[in-house]
Amino acid sequence: MERRLFLTSSALIGASLLSGCKREEVKSFNISKKRKIEIKLATSWPAGFPIMGEGVEEFAKNLNSASGGEVEVKVFGKNLLVPALGVFDACSKGQIEAFHSGPYYWKGKNPAFSLFGGFPFGFTSNEMSAWMLYGGGLDIWRKLYARYNLYPLLGGNTDVQMGGWFKKKITSLKDLKGLKMRIPGLGGEVFAKLGVNPILLPAGEIYTALERGTIDATEWVGPALDIKMGFYKVAKYYYSGFHEPGSVLELTFNKEFWQSLGEDLKSLITSLSNELNAKMVYNFQDKNAKALIELKKYGVILEEFPKEIVEAAKKALFEVIEEQSKKSRDFKMVWEAIEPYWQIQREWTSLGLKNFLRMRDG
Amino acid sequence: MERRLFLTSSALIGASLLSGCKREEVKSFNISKKRKIEIKLATSWPAGFPIMGEGVEEFAKNLNSASGGEVEVKVFGKNLLVPALGVFDACSKGQIEAFHSGPYYWKGKNPAFSLFGGFPFGFTSNEMSAWMLYGGGLDIWRKLYARYNLYPLLGGNTDVQMGGWFKKKITSLKDLKGLKMRIPGLGGEVFAKLGVNPILLPAGEIYTALERGTIDATEWVGPALDIKMGFYKVAKYYYSGFHEPGSVLELTFNKEFWQSLGEDLKSLITSLSNELNAKMVYNFQDKNAKALIELKKYGVILEEFPKEIVEAAKKALFEVIEEQSKKSRDFKMVWEAIEPYWQIQREWTSLGLKNFLRMRDG
Repeated sequence: MERRLFLTSSALIGASLLSGCKREEVKSFNISKKRKIEIKLATSWPAGFPIMGEGVEEFAKNLNSASGGEVEVKVFGKNLLVPALGVFDACSKGQIEAFHSGPYYWKGKNPAFSLFGGFPFGFTSNEMSAWMLYGGGLDIWRKLYARYNLYPLLGGNTDVQMGGWFKKKITSLKDLKGLKMRIPGLGGEVFAKLGVNPILLPAGEIYTALERGTIDATEWVGPALDIKMGFYKVAKYYYSGFHEPGSVLELTFNKEFWQSLGEDLKSLITSLSNELNAKMVYNFQDKNAKALIELKKYGVILEEFPKEIVEAAKKALFEVIEEQSKKSRDFKMVWEAIEPYWQIQREWTSLGLKNFLRMRDG
Repeated sequence: MERRLFLTSSALIGASLLSGCKREEVKSFNISKKRKIEIKLATSWPAGFPIMGEGVEEFAKNLNSASGGEVEVKVFGKNLLVPALGVFDACSKGQIEAFHSGPYYWKGKNPAFSLFGGFPFGFTSNEMSAWMLYGGGLDIWRKLYARYNLYPLLGGNTDVQMGGWFKKKITSLKDLKGLKMRIPGLGGEVFAKLGVNPILLPAGEIYTALERGTIDATEWVGPALDIKMGFYKVAKYYYSGFHEPGSVLELTFNKEFWQSLGEDLKSLITSLSNELNAKMVYNFQDKNAKALIELKKYGVILEEFPKEIVEAAKKALFEVIEEQSKKSRDFKMVWEAIEPYWQIQREWTSLGLKNFLRMRDG
């Protein structure tokens, strides 16, 4: 408020000094004095990748228009400026100002980072955003990323993911023994404890591996993105999932660059990241529903994991968490922040949303 | 892009013409030429009302800071400038630039408006935002509001509401006959068909009416707001709800005023309204979970409506929709836009989110 008053009074002096200048020209000069800020933003997805890539493109467009052209974000798809998984280091060193990716990719740097991305049986996308924005999650994340000269903002969420595509129906825990499945992250660790052989494959090789039987199953995201991969052509059983209930994407800035921004731009970019974060969930909600209709036309068989698998996976999750907590003090600290919040969220979501969905849809 | 190029080149001419002016002064003048825009925004809630009122206050603050002080939003709580339910007309006439309220309040002007607020067994908050932003909902809403010289933006969502507080346990449809319940809107119409006597009461009178037995039951919102009303002291049975699964709040502008804004401000305000819309849901998620823990300490008994009530309510909903569609062409048009979208959303939400919640929480 003080700043505004100051600007208004000194502005009057400026106006009288400049009274000889024509109005048109002053208006133009006014704009030329605006800051021009360029942000190089690299992503871990191919340029124009549906929903996730589109989201960050829209963020860039909105930031440009909402700032009256003051800020220009140049979005570089994966490998165009920086390798897909080199964005963290490049931004940390200040070679780029920002990146759009997922915190689970950086668990090699700190195992705790995977928890900011979500975990099996973990937060729904809304619960995760509640924890981040109102439950202290974002503050903890920022403290840990500060060690790398980075400042994370929320950059989207895949919303609940499907459990994946299986060539054979899974009826018991026994069916998982030795099953070769493409599944990364904490979900992969949980499935490994159930006897699955988790396999990492680049996106471009999954379809062929599944077709040829090099793998027996794969998870990806959900109907909207899975349909584009064509998995339904070579695996008919499509399972509801528990391993990634709401994976977080990050819009992370170089911390020094972030601190150099004025309060107005910090406020604007934070708000636009919250918009990006939410709209991605709504976009997934829209596109997944439409793709599901298509998948059903192709004869996909919708399945749920049997109860013994779900229960064994829950047990395995706590084993994984215990092991990680022993290995990493940061993992333990983040988990201890998450766990009580997760428990009370589950109670409310069960009472409110789950009971509603049961009444609405049986 | 063209606009930027034009501004940059003409700016150079302006700069040369002004070369005699001192840098300091020009900098000041520059700022004085900034637009100063004041927006009077009236709400239907008391000043500082938790979550909903806080959300719009935060929107005002964010708009001020993200615009570098260019836009000042003056938020007027209910009845301070305009009566709580006078905001629609006042904004339509241009007496205020904007208001924050709920579209269900305006069903007297057009029955179709209630559908933009949600309906029993209707969209979850995420499904609703998906319909609004990606399914064409907001476009239809804007067309209908344009008749009133208004331009709606998304202004929040209560997320799933509870079914309300009952002094006696409800075990069958019979228990609803003649039950006096405070419940407004389409939910009230549905319950009326089940034999309930729906009663409208101002917020300040509900507690006393419930305490004295003038009413037997009341719905309000959910744990976070209900606990502040103290209902748990005079009614022990708290039911999960189906009547308001995600009620929409609106941030509506006078259309002429909206059209007078530059593209930068339109873009900024739209983005900030999307942020407001999403963060309100996360805030409810956070506060409801915390309040539920408190309510359980007070001995509240959590209940679900018996299946026969749920099924009868679904039947009643379609009767209400048919009646309204016969009375109002707009209602019919909006319902016909909603219905197919709602059906496919239900399928995906059941497969993804509902199955996940069942696996996570039983």
